[in-house]
Amino acid sequence: MRFALGLEYCGCNFTGWQSQPDGRGVQDALERALAKIADARVGTIAAGRTDTGVHASMQVAHFDSEADRPDTAWVRGVNANLPDDVAVLWAKAVAPDFHARFDARERHYTYLLLARAARPGLSAGRLGWYHRSLDLPAMQQGAAAIVGTHDFSAFRAAECQAKSPVRTLASVSIAEAGDVLRFDFRANAYLHHMIRNIVGALVYVGAGKQAPVWMAELLAGRDRTRAAPTFAPDGLYFTGVDYDVKWALPPSRRPVSLPLA
Amino acid sequence: MRFALGLEYCGCNFTGWQSQPDGRGVQDALERALAKIADARVGTIAAGRTDTGVHASMQVAHFDSEADRPDTAWVRGVNANLPDDVAVLWAKAVAPDFHARFDARERHYTYLLLARAARPGLSAGRLGWYHRSLDLPAMQQGAAAIVGTHDFSAFRAAECQAKSPVRTLASVSIAEAGDVLRFDFRANAYLHHMIRNIVGALVYVGAGKQAPVWMAELLAGRDRTRAAPTFAPDGLYFTGVDYDVKWALPPSRRPVSLPLA
Repeated sequence: MRFALGLEYCGCNFTGWQSQPDGRGVQDALERALAKIADARVGTIAAGRTDTGVHASMQVAHFDSEADRPDTAWVRGVNANLPDDVAVLWAKAVAPDFHARFDARERHYTYLLLARAARPGLSAGRLGWYHRSLDLPAMQQGAAAIVGTHDFSAFRAAECQAKSPVRTLASVSIAEAGDVLRFDFRANAYLHHMIRNIVGALVYVGAGKQAPVWMAELLAGRDRTRAAPTFAPDGLYFTGVDYDVKWALPPSRRPVSLPLA
Repeated sequence: MRFALGLEYCGCNFTGWQSQPDGRGVQDALERALAKIADARVGTIAAGRTDTGVHASMQVAHFDSEADRPDTAWVRGVNANLPDDVAVLWAKAVAPDFHARFDARERHYTYLLLARAARPGLSAGRLGWYHRSLDLPAMQQGAAAIVGTHDFSAFRAAECQAKSPVRTLASVSIAEAGDVLRFDFRANAYLHHMIRNIVGALVYVGAGKQAPVWMAELLAGRDRTRAAPTFAPDGLYFTGVDYDVKWALPPSRRPVSLPLA
Protein backbone atom coordinates (compact mmCIF):
# COMPACT_ATOMS: atom_id res chain seq x y z
CA MET A 1 0.00 0.00 0.00
CA ARG A 2 1.19 3.51 -0.77
CA PHE A 3 0.96 6.31 1.78
CA ALA A 4 1.52 10.06 1.51
CA LEU A 5 2.51 12.16 4.47
CA GLY A 6 2.99 15.85 5.22
CA LEU A 7 5.73 16.86 7.63
CA GLU A 8 7.53 19.95 8.94
CA TYR A 9 11.07 20.35 10.23
CA CYS A 10 13.69 22.80 11.34
CA GLY A 11 16.73 22.33 9.13
CA CYS A 12 19.19 23.67 11.72
CA ASN A 13 20.44 20.27 12.88
CA PHE A 14 20.18 18.29 9.65
CA THR A 15 22.36 17.86 6.59
CA GLY A 16 19.29 18.51 4.44
CA TRP A 17 16.44 16.25 3.36
CA GLN A 18 18.43 13.56 1.62
CA SER A 19 19.64 10.41 3.35
CA GLN A 20 23.37 10.51 4.13
CA PRO A 21 25.90 7.84 5.12
CA ASP A 22 26.17 9.47 8.56
CA GLY A 23 22.38 9.31 8.98
CA ARG A 24 21.95 13.04 9.59
CA GLY A 25 19.44 13.72 6.81
CA VAL A 26 15.78 14.41 7.62
CA GLN A 27 15.00 11.41 5.42
CA ASP A 28 17.15 9.21 7.68
CA ALA A 29 15.26 10.36 10.79
CA LEU A 30 11.90 9.83 9.10
CA GLU A 31 12.78 6.39 7.71
CA ARG A 32 14.08 5.24 11.12
CA ALA A 33 10.80 6.33 12.74
CA LEU A 34 8.65 4.76 9.99
CA ALA A 35 10.57 1.48 10.29
CA LYS A 36 9.62 1.25 13.97
CA ILE A 37 5.93 1.55 13.14
CA ALA A 38 6.08 -0.67 10.04
CA ASP A 39 8.39 -3.27 11.66
CA ALA A 40 10.28 -3.22 8.38
CA ARG A 41 12.61 -1.06 6.33
CA VAL A 42 10.70 1.83 4.68
CA GLY A 43 12.03 4.00 1.83
CA THR A 44 10.64 7.49 1.27
CA ILE A 45 10.57 9.91 -1.67
CA ALA A 46 9.97 13.62 -1.04
CA ALA A 47 8.59 16.44 -3.15
CA GLY A 48 11.62 18.67 -2.54
CA ARG A 49 15.14 17.74 -1.50
CA THR A 50 15.97 20.66 0.79
CA ASP A 51 19.63 21.55 1.41
CA THR A 52 21.54 21.65 4.69
CA GLY A 53 20.00 24.22 7.06
CA VAL A 54 16.85 24.72 4.97
CA HIS A 55 13.55 24.33 6.83
CA ALA A 56 10.14 23.00 5.80
CA SER A 57 6.75 24.13 7.06
CA MET A 58 5.34 21.53 4.65
CA GLN A 59 7.21 18.73 2.95
CA VAL A 60 5.30 15.92 1.25
CA ALA A 61 6.69 12.39 0.95
CA HIS A 62 5.39 8.99 -0.05
CA PHE A 63 6.32 5.46 0.98
CA ASP A 64 5.10 1.91 0.47
CA SER A 65 4.31 -0.43 3.31
CA GLU A 66 2.41 -3.68 3.73
CA ALA A 67 1.96 -2.92 7.44
CA ASP A 68 -1.72 -2.72 8.32
CA ARG A 69 -1.83 0.37 10.53
CA PRO A 70 -4.47 3.08 11.01
CA ASP A 71 -3.51 6.46 9.47
CA THR A 72 -3.14 7.89 13.02
CA ALA A 73 -0.32 5.40 13.73
CA TRP A 74 1.64 6.92 10.88
CA VAL A 75 1.23 10.33 12.61
CA ARG A 76 1.30 9.80 16.40
CA GLY A 77 3.43 6.68 16.35
CA VAL A 78 5.97 8.14 13.96
CA ASN A 79 6.09 11.47 15.85
CA ALA A 80 6.85 9.59 19.06
CA ASN A 81 9.94 8.18 17.29
CA LEU A 82 11.10 11.35 15.53
CA PRO A 83 13.48 13.96 16.98
CA ASP A 84 11.83 17.10 18.40
CA ASP A 85 12.58 19.20 15.34
CA VAL A 86 10.61 17.02 12.88
CA ALA A 87 6.87 16.35 13.04
CA VAL A 88 4.47 14.48 10.75
CA LEU A 89 1.30 16.56 10.29
CA TRP A 90 -0.84 14.04 8.41
CA ALA A 91 -0.66 10.66 6.71
CA LYS A 92 -3.04 9.11 4.23
CA ALA A 93 -3.31 5.97 2.12
CA VAL A 94 -3.13 7.07 -1.54
CA ALA A 95 -3.46 5.60 -5.02
CA PRO A 96 -0.53 3.28 -5.82
CA ASP A 97 0.63 5.50 -8.70
CA PHE A 98 0.92 8.71 -6.64
CA HIS A 99 4.49 10.04 -6.64
CA ALA A 100 5.37 12.88 -4.24
CA ARG A 101 8.13 14.16 -6.51
CA PHE A 102 6.95 13.53 -10.07
CA ASP A 103 3.34 14.57 -9.43
CA ALA A 104 4.28 17.92 -7.86
CA ARG A 105 2.99 20.71 -10.09
CA GLU A 106 4.30 23.73 -8.24
CA ARG A 107 6.72 24.04 -5.34
CA HIS A 108 6.52 26.97 -2.90
CA TYR A 109 9.41 28.45 -0.97
CA THR A 110 9.63 31.47 1.35
CA TYR A 111 12.81 33.30 2.28
CA LEU A 112 12.71 35.39 5.49
CA LEU A 113 15.38 38.08 5.71
CA LEU A 114 16.12 40.27 8.73
CA ALA A 115 17.39 43.69 7.59
CA ARG A 116 18.89 45.56 10.57
CA ALA A 117 22.24 46.40 12.13
CA ALA A 118 22.28 43.56 14.68
CA ARG A 119 22.39 39.95 13.51
CA PRO A 120 19.52 37.62 14.53
CA GLY A 121 19.65 36.25 18.09
CA LEU A 122 16.18 35.02 19.04
CA SER A 123 15.72 33.59 15.52
CA ALA A 124 19.31 32.55 14.81
CA GLY A 125 19.36 29.90 12.09
CA ARG A 126 15.80 30.79 11.06
CA LEU A 127 16.29 34.15 9.33
CA GLY A 128 18.69 35.33 6.67
CA TRP A 129 20.39 38.63 7.58
CA TYR A 130 21.53 41.82 5.90
CA HIS A 131 23.10 44.53 8.07
CA ARG A 132 20.94 47.42 6.93
CA SER A 133 17.53 48.24 5.47
CA LEU A 134 16.82 47.47 1.82
CA ASP A 135 14.88 49.23 -0.95
CA LEU A 136 11.72 47.13 -1.32
CA PRO A 137 10.34 48.69 -4.55
CA ALA A 138 13.72 48.27 -6.27
CA MET A 139 13.82 44.59 -5.29
CA GLN A 140 10.23 44.09 -6.46
CA GLN A 141 11.12 45.66 -9.81
CA GLY A 142 14.20 43.45 -10.12
CA ALA A 143 12.26 40.33 -9.20
CA ALA A 144 9.58 41.00 -11.81
CA ALA A 145 12.26 40.86 -14.52
CA ILE A 146 13.08 37.19 -13.90
CA VAL A 147 9.55 35.80 -13.66
CA GLY A 148 8.66 33.41 -16.48
CA THR A 149 10.28 30.53 -18.37
CA HIS A 150 14.00 31.16 -18.70
CA ASP A 151 17.45 29.62 -18.73
CA PHE A 152 18.39 30.27 -15.08
CA SER A 153 22.10 29.39 -15.46
CA ALA A 154 23.02 32.74 -13.83
CA PHE A 155 21.44 31.50 -10.59
CA ARG A 156 22.60 27.88 -10.79
CA ALA A 157 25.14 26.31 -8.43
CA ALA A 158 28.22 24.77 -10.05
CA GLU A 159 27.28 21.40 -8.51
CA CYS A 160 23.77 21.46 -10.01
CA GLN A 161 22.96 18.11 -11.65
CA ALA A 162 19.80 19.13 -13.53
CA LYS A 163 19.81 18.21 -17.21
CA SER A 164 18.33 21.53 -18.30
CA PRO A 165 18.84 25.02 -16.82
CA VAL A 166 15.36 26.06 -17.99
CA ARG A 167 12.74 26.55 -15.29
CA THR A 168 9.39 28.32 -15.08
CA LEU A 169 9.36 30.79 -12.21
CA ALA A 170 5.63 31.48 -11.87
CA SER A 171 5.94 34.27 -9.32
CA VAL A 172 8.21 36.07 -6.87
CA SER A 173 6.54 38.39 -4.40
CA ILE A 174 8.31 40.44 -1.73
CA ALA A 175 6.72 42.03 1.33
CA GLU A 176 8.02 43.57 4.54
CA ALA A 177 6.85 43.90 8.15
CA GLY A 178 9.07 45.90 10.45
CA ASP A 179 12.66 44.88 9.71
CA VAL A 180 11.83 41.48 8.22
CA LEU A 181 11.45 40.93 4.47
CA ARG A 182 9.58 37.97 3.08
CA PHE A 183 10.24 36.58 -0.41
CA ASP A 184 7.68 34.09 -1.76
CA PHE A 185 8.65 31.88 -4.71
CA ARG A 186 6.45 29.65 -6.81
CA ALA A 187 7.85 27.47 -9.60
CA ASN A 188 7.46 24.01 -11.10
CA ALA A 189 11.00 23.18 -9.98
CA TYR A 190 14.27 24.93 -9.09
CA LEU A 191 17.95 24.57 -9.93
CA HIS A 192 20.41 23.90 -7.11
CA HIS A 193 20.77 27.03 -4.90
CA MET A 194 18.53 28.94 -7.34
CA ILE A 195 16.45 30.71 -4.67
CA ARG A 196 19.41 31.58 -2.45
CA ASN A 197 21.27 32.94 -5.50
CA ILE A 198 18.26 35.01 -6.56
CA VAL A 199 17.87 36.38 -3.02
CA GLY A 200 21.59 37.27 -2.98
CA ALA A 201 21.20 39.20 -6.24
CA LEU A 202 18.02 40.93 -5.06
CA VAL A 203 19.81 42.05 -1.89
CA TYR A 204 22.48 43.68 -4.09
CA VAL A 205 19.64 45.55 -5.82
CA GLY A 206 17.94 46.45 -2.53
CA ALA A 207 21.22 47.74 -1.12
CA GLY A 208 21.74 49.96 -4.18
CA LYS A 209 24.86 48.11 -5.36
CA GLN A 210 23.05 47.32 -8.61
CA ALA A 211 20.04 48.79 -10.44
CA PRO A 212 16.88 46.68 -10.79
CA VAL A 213 17.66 46.14 -14.49
CA TRP A 214 20.75 44.19 -13.45
CA MET A 215 18.51 41.21 -12.65
CA ALA A 216 17.45 40.99 -16.32
CA GLU A 217 21.05 41.44 -17.44
CA LEU A 218 22.26 38.68 -15.12
CA LEU A 219 19.54 36.34 -16.36
CA ALA A 220 20.38 37.07 -20.00
CA GLY A 221 24.12 36.62 -19.34
CA ARG A 222 23.58 33.06 -18.03
CA ASP A 223 26.90 33.37 -16.18
CA ARG A 224 26.88 32.41 -12.49
CA THR A 225 30.27 34.07 -11.91
CA ARG A 226 28.78 37.53 -12.56
CA ALA A 227 26.04 37.21 -9.94
CA ALA A 228 26.02 37.91 -6.19
CA PRO A 229 27.06 35.47 -3.44
CA THR A 230 24.67 32.65 -2.49
CA PHE A 231 22.59 33.71 0.50
CA ALA A 232 22.53 31.67 3.73
CA PRO A 233 20.13 28.70 4.03
CA ASP A 234 18.94 30.03 7.42
CA GLY A 235 15.99 32.01 6.07
CA LEU A 236 14.75 29.45 3.52
CA TYR A 237 11.52 27.51 4.10
CA PHE A 238 9.93 24.92 1.83
CA THR A 239 6.25 25.77 2.31
CA GLY A 240 4.56 23.10 0.26
CA VAL A 241 3.48 21.64 -3.02
CA ASP A 242 0.51 21.79 -5.35
CA TYR A 243 -0.86 18.43 -6.56
CA ASP A 244 -3.79 17.58 -8.77
CA VAL A 245 -7.01 17.39 -6.73
CA LYS A 246 -7.51 13.85 -8.03
CA TRP A 247 -5.05 12.61 -5.40
CA ALA A 248 -7.39 13.93 -2.65
CA LEU A 249 -4.50 14.80 -0.35
CA PRO A 250 -4.85 16.72 2.95
CA PRO A 251 -3.49 20.31 2.78
CA SER A 252 -0.07 20.19 1.15
CA ARG A 253 0.83 23.85 1.73
CA ARG A 254 1.54 25.66 5.00
CA PRO A 255 2.72 29.26 4.56
CA VAL A 256 5.16 30.78 7.05
CA SER A 257 4.52 34.35 8.05
CA LEU A 258 6.87 36.98 9.40
CA PRO A 259 8.01 35.82 12.85
CA LEU A 260 8.39 39.31 14.29
CA ALA A 261 5.97 42.23 14.00
CA MET B 1 29.56 55.35 33.44
CA ARG B 2 26.23 53.53 33.27
CA PHE B 3 24.95 51.92 30.08
CA ALA B 4 21.60 50.39 29.13
CA LEU B 5 21.28 47.77 26.45
CA GLY B 6 18.47 45.94 24.70
CA LEU B 7 18.99 42.32 23.71
CA GLU B 8 17.11 39.31 22.36
CA TYR B 9 17.71 35.60 22.86
CA CYS B 10 16.35 32.15 22.30
CA GLY B 11 16.03 30.48 25.70
CA CYS B 12 16.33 26.94 24.30
CA ASN B 13 19.96 26.45 25.25
CA PHE B 14 20.13 28.52 28.45
CA THR B 15 19.26 27.89 32.08
CA GLY B 16 17.37 31.19 32.08
CA TRP B 17 18.54 34.77 32.42
CA GLN B 18 20.27 34.52 35.75
CA SER B 19 23.96 33.77 36.17
CA GLN B 20 24.61 30.18 37.29
CA PRO B 21 27.67 28.42 38.73
CA ASP B 22 27.91 26.38 35.50
CA GLY B 23 27.88 29.57 33.42
CA ARG B 24 24.86 28.59 31.32
CA GLY B 25 22.70 31.63 32.08
CA VAL B 26 22.12 34.30 29.42
CA GLN B 27 23.62 36.73 31.93
CA ASP B 28 26.83 34.67 32.00
CA ALA B 29 27.12 34.78 28.21
CA LEU B 30 26.44 38.52 28.15
CA GLU B 31 28.89 39.33 30.95
CA ARG B 32 31.63 37.25 29.31
CA ALA B 33 31.12 39.17 26.06
CA LEU B 34 30.97 42.57 27.80
CA ALA B 35 34.16 41.77 29.72
CA LYS B 36 36.02 41.27 26.44
CA ILE B 37 35.02 44.72 25.23
CA ALA B 38 35.50 46.43 28.61
CA ASP B 39 38.75 44.60 29.39
CA ALA B 40 37.36 44.17 32.91
CA ARG B 41 34.71 42.25 34.80
CA VAL B 42 31.21 43.68 34.11
CA GLY B 43 28.09 42.94 36.17
CA THR B 44 24.63 43.30 34.63
CA ILE B 45 21.12 43.74 36.01
CA ALA B 46 18.11 42.89 33.84
CA ALA B 47 14.49 44.03 33.79
CA GLY B 48 13.15 40.46 33.89
CA ARG B 49 14.81 37.28 35.11
CA THR B 50 13.43 34.80 32.58
CA ASP B 51 13.32 31.10 33.49
CA THR B 52 14.97 28.16 31.75
CA GLY B 53 13.70 27.82 28.18
CA VAL B 54 11.96 31.22 28.14
CA HIS B 55 12.86 33.52 25.25
CA ALA B 56 13.19 37.28 24.93
CA SER B 57 12.47 39.41 21.89
CA MET B 58 13.45 42.37 24.10
CA GLN B 59 15.28 42.22 27.40
CA VAL B 60 16.74 45.40 28.92
CA ALA B 61 19.81 45.37 31.15
CA HIS B 62 22.17 47.93 32.61
CA PHE B 63 25.83 47.81 33.57
CA ASP B 64 28.58 50.14 34.75
CA SER B 65 31.90 50.46 33.01
CA GLU B 66 34.74 52.96 32.99
CA ALA B 67 35.82 51.70 29.56
CA ASP B 68 35.72 54.54 27.03
CA ARG B 69 34.05 52.83 24.06
CA PRO B 70 31.66 54.13 21.39
CA ASP B 71 28.06 52.86 21.80
CA THR B 72 28.54 50.78 18.61
CA ALA B 73 31.32 48.79 20.33
CA TRP B 74 28.81 47.68 22.94
CA VAL B 75 26.64 46.37 20.09
CA ARG B 76 28.90 45.05 17.33
CA GLY B 77 31.82 44.14 19.57
CA VAL B 78 29.65 42.38 22.11
CA ASN B 79 27.66 40.55 19.40
CA ALA B 80 30.90 39.24 17.94
CA ASN B 81 31.59 37.65 21.34
CA LEU B 82 28.09 36.32 22.08
CA PRO B 83 26.75 32.89 21.08
CA ASP B 84 24.50 32.85 17.98
CA ASP B 85 21.29 32.70 19.99
CA VAL B 86 21.84 36.03 21.79
CA ALA B 87 22.13 39.45 20.15
CA VAL B 88 22.45 42.98 21.53
CA LEU B 89 20.10 45.28 19.58
CA TRP B 90 21.17 48.64 21.01
CA ALA B 91 23.34 50.14 23.73
CA LYS B 92 23.28 53.64 25.14
CA ALA B 93 24.99 55.63 27.90
CA VAL B 94 22.31 56.55 30.46
CA ALA B 95 21.90 58.58 33.63
CA PRO B 96 23.84 57.03 36.54
CA ASP B 97 20.65 56.43 38.54
CA PHE B 98 18.85 54.42 35.82
CA HIS B 99 18.04 50.90 37.01
CA ALA B 100 16.78 48.33 34.45
CA ARG B 101 14.84 46.40 37.10
CA PHE B 102 13.58 48.99 39.58
CA ASP B 103 12.63 51.58 36.97
CA ALA B 104 10.55 49.13 34.91
CA ARG B 105 6.92 50.24 35.00
CA GLU B 106 5.29 47.48 33.00
CA ARG B 107 6.63 44.18 31.74
CA HIS B 108 5.21 42.53 28.61
CA TYR B 109 5.14 38.81 27.89
CA THR B 110 3.63 36.84 25.02
CA TYR B 111 2.79 33.13 25.10
CA LEU B 112 2.48 31.37 21.72
CA LEU B 113 0.51 28.13 21.80
CA LEU B 114 0.11 25.66 18.93
CA ALA B 115 -3.30 23.95 19.14
CA ARG B 116 -3.35 20.93 16.77
CA ALA B 117 -3.03 17.16 16.83
CA ALA B 118 0.66 17.05 15.88
CA ARG B 119 3.28 18.48 18.24
CA PRO B 120 5.53 21.32 16.95
CA GLY B 121 8.42 20.26 14.71
CA LEU B 122 9.61 23.32 12.76
CA SER B 123 9.15 25.49 15.88
CA ALA B 124 10.06 22.93 18.54
CA GLY B 125 11.08 24.74 21.74
CA ARG B 126 9.47 27.97 20.51
CA LEU B 127 5.76 27.18 20.84
CA GLY B 128 3.68 25.71 23.65
CA TRP B 129 1.41 22.88 22.48
CA TYR B 130 -2.06 21.55 23.15
CA HIS B 131 -3.24 18.52 21.16
CA ARG B 132 -6.52 19.97 19.92
CA SER B 133 -8.28 23.24 19.15
CA LEU B 134 -9.41 25.49 22.00
CA ASP B 135 -12.46 27.70 22.59
CA LEU B 136 -11.11 31.24 22.18
CA PRO B 137 -14.17 33.19 23.49
CA ALA B 138 -14.29 31.00 26.63
CA MET B 139 -10.61 31.69 27.30
CA GLN B 140 -11.08 35.42 26.69
CA GLN B 141 -13.95 35.43 29.17
CA GLY B 142 -11.88 33.53 31.75
CA ALA B 143 -8.89 35.82 31.29
CA ALA B 144 -10.99 38.96 31.81
CA ALA B 145 -11.89 37.70 35.28
CA ILE B 146 -8.31 37.85 36.57
CA VAL B 147 -7.31 41.27 35.23
CA GLY B 148 -6.67 43.85 37.95
CA THR B 149 -4.89 44.03 41.31
CA HIS B 150 -5.23 40.70 43.11
CA ASP B 151 -3.57 38.18 45.37
CA PHE B 152 -2.29 35.77 42.68
CA SER B 153 -1.36 32.94 45.07
CA ALA B 154 -3.42 30.51 42.96
CA PHE B 155 -0.94 31.03 40.10
CA ARG B 156 2.24 31.20 42.17
CA ALA B 157 5.00 28.57 42.11
CA ALA B 158 5.87 26.95 45.45
CA GLU B 159 9.45 28.23 45.05
CA CYS B 160 8.35 31.85 44.56
CA GLN B 161 10.40 34.20 46.74
CA ALA B 162 8.31 37.36 46.34
CA LYS B 163 7.36 39.03 49.61
CA SER B 164 3.80 39.72 48.53
CA PRO B 165 1.50 37.65 46.26
CA VAL B 166 -0.30 40.82 45.14
CA ARG B 167 0.30 41.95 41.57
CA THR B 168 -1.47 44.23 39.11
CA LEU B 169 -2.27 42.41 35.89
CA ALA B 170 -3.08 45.33 33.59
CA SER B 171 -4.27 43.23 30.65
CA VAL B 172 -4.44 39.78 29.10
CA SER B 173 -5.45 39.58 25.46
CA ILE B 174 -5.81 36.42 23.43
CA ALA B 175 -5.89 36.16 19.64
CA GLU B 176 -5.57 33.33 17.13
CA ALA B 177 -4.26 32.87 13.61
CA GLY B 178 -4.68 29.45 12.07
CA ASP B 179 -3.79 26.91 14.75
CA VAL B 180 -1.62 29.24 16.83
CA LEU B 181 -2.96 31.17 19.83
CA ARG B 182 -1.25 34.24 21.14
CA PHE B 183 -1.62 35.40 24.77
CA ASP B 184 -0.34 38.91 25.56
CA PHE B 185 0.29 39.85 29.19
CA ARG B 186 1.01 43.27 30.66
CA ALA B 187 1.73 43.75 34.37
CA ASN B 188 3.99 45.72 36.68
CA ALA B 189 5.60 42.45 37.79
CA TYR B 190 4.84 38.72 37.98
CA LEU B 191 5.09 35.96 40.55
CA HIS B 192 7.25 32.93 39.75
CA HIS B 193 5.62 30.83 36.96
CA MET B 194 2.57 33.13 37.11
CA ILE B 195 2.09 33.39 33.35
CA ARG B 196 2.68 29.70 32.66
CA ASN B 197 0.22 28.81 35.44
CA ILE B 198 -2.40 31.22 34.06
CA VAL B 199 -1.92 29.78 30.55
CA GLY B 200 -2.33 26.26 31.96
CA ALA B 201 -5.61 27.23 33.62
CA LEU B 202 -6.87 29.05 30.51
CA VAL B 203 -6.15 25.94 28.43
CA TYR B 204 -8.38 23.93 30.81
CA VAL B 205 -11.09 26.51 30.12
CA GLY B 206 -10.48 26.48 26.37
CA ALA B 207 -10.62 22.67 26.32
CA GLY B 208 -13.96 22.71 28.14
CA LYS B 209 -12.61 21.00 31.27
CA GLN B 210 -13.66 24.04 33.29
CA ALA B 211 -16.11 26.91 32.73
CA PRO B 212 -14.74 30.47 32.30
CA VAL B 213 -15.98 31.36 35.82
CA TRP B 214 -13.46 28.84 37.21
CA MET B 215 -10.69 31.42 36.65
CA ALA B 216 -12.35 33.79 39.13
CA GLU B 217 -12.94 30.93 41.57
CA LEU B 218 -9.30 29.84 41.35
CA LEU B 219 -8.11 33.40 41.93
CA ALA B 220 -10.41 33.83 44.95
CA GLY B 221 -9.33 30.44 46.37
CA ARG B 222 -5.65 31.49 46.44
CA ASP B 223 -4.70 27.81 46.43
CA ARG B 224 -2.11 26.72 43.86
CA THR B 225 -2.96 23.04 44.37
CA ARG B 226 -6.43 23.52 42.87
CA ALA B 227 -5.17 25.04 39.61
CA ALA B 228 -3.99 23.42 36.37
CA PRO B 229 -0.43 22.21 35.62
CA THR B 230 2.24 24.79 34.79
CA PHE B 231 2.55 25.15 31.03
CA ALA B 232 5.86 24.61 29.22
CA PRO B 233 8.36 27.49 28.95
CA ASP B 234 8.70 26.83 25.19
CA GLY B 235 6.04 29.33 24.11
CA LEU B 236 6.92 32.15 26.50
CA TYR B 237 8.58 35.35 25.23
CA PHE B 238 9.60 38.39 27.26
CA THR B 239 8.72 41.17 24.80
CA GLY B 240 9.91 44.23 26.64
CA VAL B 241 9.52 46.86 29.26
CA ASP B 242 7.99 50.31 29.65
CA TYR B 243 10.21 52.98 31.23
CA ASP B 244 9.61 56.65 31.92
CA VAL B 245 10.41 58.73 28.83
CA LYS B 246 12.86 60.76 30.95
CA TRP B 247 15.44 57.97 30.51
CA ALA B 248 15.37 58.56 26.73
CA LEU B 249 15.97 54.89 25.93
CA PRO B 250 15.84 53.38 22.44
CA PRO B 251 12.76 51.16 21.83
CA SER B 252 12.41 48.82 24.81
CA ARG B 253 9.59 46.70 23.40
CA ARG B 254 9.62 44.30 20.47
CA PRO B 255 6.38 42.32 20.01
CA VAL B 256 6.50 38.80 18.63
CA SER B 257 3.78 37.88 16.19
CA LEU B 258 2.38 34.51 15.25
CA PRO B 259 5.16 32.56 13.50
CA LEU B 260 2.88 30.58 11.22
CA ALA B 261 -0.06 31.86 9.18
